[in-house]
Amino acid sequence: MAGTSSHEHDAMRRALVLAAGPDAPLHPNPRVGCVLLAPDGRVVAEGAHRGAGTPHAEVDALSRAGAEARGATAVVTLEPCNHTGRTGPCAEALVAAGVRRVVLAQRDPNPLAAGGAATLRAAGIEVATGLLEAEARELNRVWTFAVEHGRPFVTWKLATTIDGRSAAADGTSRWVSGTASRRDTHRLRALADTMLVGTGTVAVDDPLLTVRDAEDRPLARQPLRVVMGERDLDPAARVLAPVDGIASPSLHLRTRDPHEALAELAARERRHVFLEGGPTLAAAFVAAGLVDEVVAYVAPFLLGAGRSAVADLGITTITDAWRPEVLDVAVLEPVVAGEQPDVRFTLVPPVRTPAAGDA
Amino acid sequence: MAGTSSHEHDAMRRALVLAAGPDAPLHPNPRVGCVLLAPDGRVVAEGAHRGAGTPHAEVDALSRAGAEARGATAVVTLEPCNHTGRTGPCAEALVAAGVRRVVLAQRDPNPLAAGGAATLRAAGIEVATGLLEAEARELNRVWTFAVEHGRPFVTWKLATTIDGRSAAADGTSRWVSGTASRRDTHRLRALADTMLVGTGTVAVDDPLLTVRDAEDRPLARQPLRVVMGERDLDPAARVLAPVDGIASPSLHLRTRDPHEALAELAARERRHVFLEGGPTLAAAFVAAGLVDEVVAYVAPFLLGAGRSAVADLGITTITDAWRPEVLDVAVLEPVVAGEQPDVRFTLVPPVRTPAAGDA
Repeated sequence: MAGTSSHEHDAMRRALVLAAGPDAPLHPNPRVGCVLLAPDGRVVAEGAHRGAGTPHAEVDALSRAGAEARGATAVVTLEPCNHTGRTGPCAEALVAAGVRRVVLAQRDPNPLAAGGAATLRAAGIEVATGLLEAEARELNRVWTFAVEHGRPFVTWKLATTIDGRSAAADGTSRWVSGTASRRDTHRLRALADTMLVGTGTVAVDDPLLTVRDAEDRPLARQPLRVVMGERDLDPAARVLAPVDGIASPSLHLRTRDPHEALAELAARERRHVFLEGGPTLAAAFVAAGLVDEVVAYVAPFLLGAGRSAVADLGITTITDAWRPEVLDVAVLEPVVAGEQPDVRFTLVPPVRTPAAGDA
Repeated sequence: MAGTSSHEHDAMRRALVLAAGPDAPLHPNPRVGCVLLAPDGRVVAEGAHRGAGTPHAEVDALSRAGAEARGATAVVTLEPCNHTGRTGPCAEALVAAGVRRVVLAQRDPNPLAAGGAATLRAAGIEVATGLLEAEARELNRVWTFAVEHGRPFVTWKLATTIDGRSAAADGTSRWVSGTASRRDTHRLRALADTMLVGTGTVAVDDPLLTVRDAEDRPLARQPLRVVMGERDLDPAARVLAPVDGIASPSLHLRTRDPHEALAELAARERRHVFLEGGPTLAAAFVAAGLVDEVVAYVAPFLLGAGRSAVADLGITTITDAWRPEVLDVAVLEPVVAGEQPDVRFTLVPPVRTPAAGDA
């Protein structure tokens, strides 16, 4: 990139690694890394953000650099924030520390936090933008989407037989997909901050909606469990109970409108919703253009009857089919003897939802 | 294998190659190869069968060997036949030629043709059986099945969306699967001697039921096109018309009973039925235990409504699901820009049909 040195390029690569470290936050904050360089290109200090309430990456690096920050170049994966949230604005901290130059990858998509670059320039600091921007956006893919669209990113997971059934005629559905697929589902649930089902699914399946490891033990960190719909919940529903003593909140959103539900979740700083059905709720999200990613497990057996995995989408002819782009196809080999391999499709919907409709 | 030499082993490998040569028959006859060895292990002559009405592999090899056949060992992939069909019995021809020893791989499963080994032994010829038997059976997998069960092997092909639909609500179904899957289907059709659909599919889809190449040109050899069901066919149905001047017979079987249909096709020396629907016909074959292989193309898009790929199978609870064994899962990458990959499952049903029920 024009206007940046190879030292800065190397430092940005390092900052991206720091940002994705083991303590990096999943949600609601972005992952950010920062490297401070001396005028001769030597690394003065490194920093990373470790989650809401802890210092931002720039402040972390500045505190380690001490007096050496004066005259340094700050290489940071995200535009320094300009607002006072739980911590002070980073732009001001950089100015106060006497940093001479700032190189950043991704501009801040959050209108509340943006303006950091302008503040820095107004204080006489050189600012270069866009170095390894694509990598930085990918690092915070879901967060960036959520901030830009003003609503959580929605991953819709479905499990179906080859003939499109998610349950048999008598309602039984354990199990449609194999052990490998179910473990994969828990892995993906753990990446989200919110799990969402409809009141119908709670009434029929009474799911726990927890994230568990391969030994079926619940993880220490559980996503918010959300049930959506106007029907009352059975107070004994398992989704309302604590998980083996682990703090595992749940929430009933009394609406049938996906836009309204996502607005409510956005207000609660939810970035990533893992939508698991049932078919009617999923169809409502698809029809509203509010599915951003589909993870579909297809199990190689037949039921011939029973609950369809997807409810009516208002599609009447084949040329109007909902045709997503295939990002990935994976064969999930059995992890338990006697099971058969499932196939996992990862899909991106054909049309993105306009952000304006989501706020 | 005990009782056979390394010369004979090598000769059997060669006989298997000869059997599968470019002129080898698909149906109704088996593929057979034969190698004649001199007492010192030298190859005297090779032979192969090239289809109904042409010499069997043993006779082909004997005619090439001439007087050198006397005292030789015949290494042959299938038990020499004992009956006079379109050609004379091979067992007698081997005796007449003065062959000293016969090594064979697969016993003849056809009760009309079997007994060759006994005839040879009665004539004082040494007979060793079972050398590379598994390879020989695999070479004639479909033929062996058809002869052992007294009915054609049935491959059921289905194409479905992720949500299990084979057509949209208005009946449109072109196309559910992509170009790569359709070409793959033609490749598989070409391996069968019979294509089978129901009268309902003819009424709704009016298929051509031809085998075409990647340029959409019909192949010179077309399987028999069979329509099954009690309804009358529209005389203008495309399945009844010749294919671009190519001899391409079709047949209407006026029955709804899969057992009866297969018995009728067996009587016509049909070995391999490629069943393509519709859902009701396919379900009748599944329910009758008359599906021997499933090739399922799953296309990664949604319809939400429309014709189910599979009709009711009488399954009411998930533990009774029809769970085949997965032989293969393949991702069929697009061959046309803008298309998405399909997945092809190749499945073997959970329970084989008892042969006794099929005659």
